[in-house]
Amino acid sequence: MSFEVIILGSSSALPTSERFPAAHLLIVNERFFLIDCGEGTQIQLRRFRLNPSRISHIFITHLHGDHVFGLFGLLSSLGLMGRQREIHLYGPEGLQVLLQDHLRYFGPLPYAIIFHVPEEGRDYLYEDDKLAVTAIPLAHRTTTFGFLFREKPKPLNIKKEEIEKLDLSIADIVKIKNGADYHLPDGTVIPNSALTLPPFHPRSYAYISDTAFLPSIVDKIRHVDLLYHEATFSEEDLDLARENWHSTARQAAEIARHAGAGKLLIGHFSSRYKSVETLLEEAGEIFPNTVAVSDGDRFELPLERENPSPDDHL
Amino acid sequence: MSFEVIILGSSSALPTSERFPAAHLLIVNERFFLIDCGEGTQIQLRRFRLNPSRISHIFITHLHGDHVFGLFGLLSSLGLMGRQREIHLYGPEGLQVLLQDHLRYFGPLPYAIIFHVPEEGRDYLYEDDKLAVTAIPLAHRTTTFGFLFREKPKPLNIKKEEIEKLDLSIADIVKIKNGADYHLPDGTVIPNSALTLPPFHPRSYAYISDTAFLPSIVDKIRHVDLLYHEATFSEEDLDLARENWHSTARQAAEIARHAGAGKLLIGHFSSRYKSVETLLEEAGEIFPNTVAVSDGDRFELPLERENPSPDDHL
Repeated sequence: MSFEVIILGSSSALPTSERFPAAHLLIVNERFFLIDCGEGTQIQLRRFRLNPSRISHIFITHLHGDHVFGLFGLLSSLGLMGRQREIHLYGPEGLQVLLQDHLRYFGPLPYAIIFHVPEEGRDYLYEDDKLAVTAIPLAHRTTTFGFLFREKPKPLNIKKEEIEKLDLSIADIVKIKNGADYHLPDGTVIPNSALTLPPFHPRSYAYISDTAFLPSIVDKIRHVDLLYHEATFSEEDLDLARENWHSTARQAAEIARHAGAGKLLIGHFSSRYKSVETLLEEAGEIFPNTVAVSDGDRFELPLERENPSPDDHL
Repeated sequence: MSFEVIILGSSSALPTSERFPAAHLLIVNERFFLIDCGEGTQIQLRRFRLNPSRISHIFITHLHGDHVFGLFGLLSSLGLMGRQREIHLYGPEGLQVLLQDHLRYFGPLPYAIIFHVPEEGRDYLYEDDKLAVTAIPLAHRTTTFGFLFREKPKPLNIKKEEIEKLDLSIADIVKIKNGADYHLPDGTVIPNSALTLPPFHPRSYAYISDTAFLPSIVDKIRHVDLLYHEATFSEEDLDLARENWHSTARQAAEIARHAGAGKLLIGHFSSRYKSVETLLEEAGEIFPNTVAVSDGDRFELPLERENPSPDDHL
């Protein structure tokens, strides 16, 4: 079960020769989720040898060009590549109209697009047996949602050798996975903790872009393993950040620190900064485990068992 | 006076990791003319250190995504970079509506866009004191125009040392540049050919894409110095070329040969060909001076004097 984030674009509105506009790819258990689709996303996918045809869900945060101008090309190419399977597209209301306008000129696609509009207060924007996605309203010049991808809590893992040793039935296994002890015919009780390993930790990743500093999101992303938070500006340009509804690197780090994130990724850098070192240092002072991302960076969250809490053995 | 073509994208509909979709930049005497604007054109401009702000005229051949999906991002970035100077945009009628639809979602641009729709039979689509552009109707699945950029005929060049030696007036110089002989006060006639050098050859470049094999264009591009002609397919896939209103490499070379072009550039290669060597060989058999272009290639046409024809001295 992989859980990996790949940075396809890390510039803000103006791309540079090194950085394409916003796009991340999240791969969970072979499922490809694309988040934002700046111009050139399909080119980056090919460059990093990621098959665009495997994308099944596309999440668009907001209707600014640097987050969406690659969508038309990608959808069109998928059609040319013979796609028939539907695409689920999540984004602001206008996106559907925009795309319809487009298809009027460029012809229909050979597959269906199923639109989903994020709404505040709704539990899950997307859900399957292993993963749930929540939309998080952000504070930007236009309607914008961030997205939290979180694996669902996993069951206890039963020790394989115990299954064989005790000759357990499927029904027994299910009970034990749900926490039950096992009773031998002679009345001996084998405690659950002797039969199972702690479950794997449900991994999580939040994509927070674009937004002004918004402390109210902290509660929604608490203990997220991997937090991507835009850091368009340096704290020196705080006025610019405020004026343009963006965040500084320091503010991104403050959100990570208060949320108790595992790791912070910063990106969406303004092209005014020749080097992002200053931004990285600024964030690192508040939240040391910070990475200033580059296009092509990959962040894999390994499967790790939950630390058994002290009361597991009470 | 430079006259240079730079290849920004050379793929057909599906970009590859090596080739971006269609876009050429023509620089004539410091003026930047962009021809087609596939996805990622603004990224290629930065990569090849060409300042996008210097573009003043954009020519779009037709409304297929691989020729136009980079336009919205480029126009938007020019706005963010503070552009106020107008852009002249040449393309099929639908382009204006498409762009207006776009701007409804993404907000207005801080500069004006002046639309020009190519029409068959019209002399020049664009004209200044040194250059004229003709639209050439092509045969594709949608309304498509190629473009011929041709410098205007240049006057004779008067020899500098003669101006000084004879102490010529401005009026004399103008007459001599137009071909007149010079009469000395003593009645001696100095023939024009002794006073002037042949004019510089008016350079020309034709961009022919996308199109089915269309021999009727030969007359319109006769003796063009640099001919770019799409070569989406190999002759082996002639059926595919016909079906999709595209040309083969061999057909591109036939056009070049019949037109008496100076050099042929082929591009818009289908991603089905792992290497373009076959396409290059196929064209080269018909028209040896052929180049299979790659992104970033530059082709400069030097200033060269016309060869004086034998009757110059009669």
